Amino acid sequence: MRVIFNEGLKAVADNLDLMARNVRDAIRLSGEALLNQDLDAAQTVIDNDANIDDLSAKILDQCVELLARQNPVATDLRVVVATMRLATTFERMGDLARHIAEAARRTYPNSPIPENLTGTFTQMQQFLDITGGRIVDMLVDRDTSIADQIIRDDDKLDELHRQIMQYADGPDWKGTNEQLINVVLIGRFMERLGDHAVSAARRVVFVVSGFDPSKTPTRDEGTDID
Amino acid sequence: MRVIFNEGLKAVADNLDLMARNVRDAIRLSGEALLNQDLDAAQTVIDNDANIDDLSAKILDQCVELLARQNPVATDLRVVVATMRLATTFERMGDLARHIAEAARRTYPNSPIPENLTGTFTQMQQFLDITGGRIVDMLVDRDTSIADQIIRDDDKLDELHRQIMQYADGPDWKGTNEQLINVVLIGRFMERLGDHAVSAARRVVFVVSGFDPSKTPTRDEGTDID
Repeated sequence: MRVIFNEGLKAVADNLDLMARNVRDAIRLSGEALLNQDLDAAQTVIDNDANIDDLSAKILDQCVELLARQNPVATDLRVVVATMRLATTFERMGDLARHIAEAARRTYPNSPIPENLTGTFTQMQQFLDITGGRIVDMLVDRDTSIADQIIRDDDKLDELHRQIMQYADGPDWKGTNEQLINVVLIGRFMERLGDHAVSAARRVVFVVSGFDPSKTPTRDEGTDID
Repeated sequence: MRVIFNEGLKAVADNLDLMARNVRDAIRLSGEALLNQDLDAAQTVIDNDANIDDLSAKILDQCVELLARQNPVATDLRVVVATMRLATTFERMGDLARHIAEAARRTYPNSPIPENLTGTFTQMQQFLDITGGRIVDMLVDRDTSIADQIIRDDDKLDELHRQIMQYADGPDWKGTNEQLINVVLIGRFMERLGDHAVSAARRVVFVVSGFDPSKTPTRDEGTDID
């Protein structure tokens, strides 16, 4: 029974790894679309979001199957539940990357954001790229130690977003209304990506701890910010 | 065993009903805050969001307990899983109502939106108020027939949101940058509330069908839009 459960959990873990890689790539490519007017990158993110959604549904079904056939309890059960919630968080991160790609496609060949904000958006993107890679590493290497870095970096991301909104709402704003709308929406999508990354990192710690009992399990955090 | 499971599910259902009422009230009061500069209403939504989050965590724990002790299978299992996901959707609806209330509090005593958009935002709010009430009715009366109305009305909500964005992005826009930012963000929060209401309605159909086998169960929809 135990062996079968672990095999089942391994199959789910492989799909989680695959989903995390897809989300990491979607974040990176949506940044290319946003900052370099890369239309191919935008289209790739938009087209690939369906694969991310399919993986989410597949993981959910695998988890329901595990619950039905193996009746896991205690930590095993919490790991399966956390895995279902992690898949939903990844799915939403894919949606947000798609929203950014769609905004970039909408204004192509022009940038959706004004020139003088490119630097700050680039810094936000760099944080998100690093975070996307870290979440993959956490899952693949079963390494929970970087979760704290992801949580710490989210403060920096929020600070950059605050600066963008302060400028957008201030007397020095130079740009069209369309650019202002894009700055507000894209800024929010990126901030949300960071929030979901924090939520994902906390869940990965919990899931990985369950995969590897030598790690101390932490309680899954229930709060998703929308 | 069956009796104990049903009793457990009943306890979860009571908390789901309570959570739906809280979300319905949060939607209504956030509209009061937005459209009537009602500061008390805004503060009530903001303060009460913690209760909604607590209910979500409580429901999740109850579901995990049910899974651990009762090992539900087939429809029972899918109902428990759908219930967990429904609680998360309600939690996010509460967050969105809070975001609207916070925007209204930020600009008090002024309205966050320009005068000439009040009518369209009022129409969006009316749809959301009706939808919040319908979701409560679906749960309390175990009535799944109104789900289609909720799904239909979301198109009307999206059309109103489209009109608002078209005006905000158009040559006739009259307002400050702060108002433009508020229109974009609040419009998006309300559109998202509608999307989550659709996702909630679909899950309620599934959950209620499980509570009452005379109803035809439908497959739980995995897609949450963020």
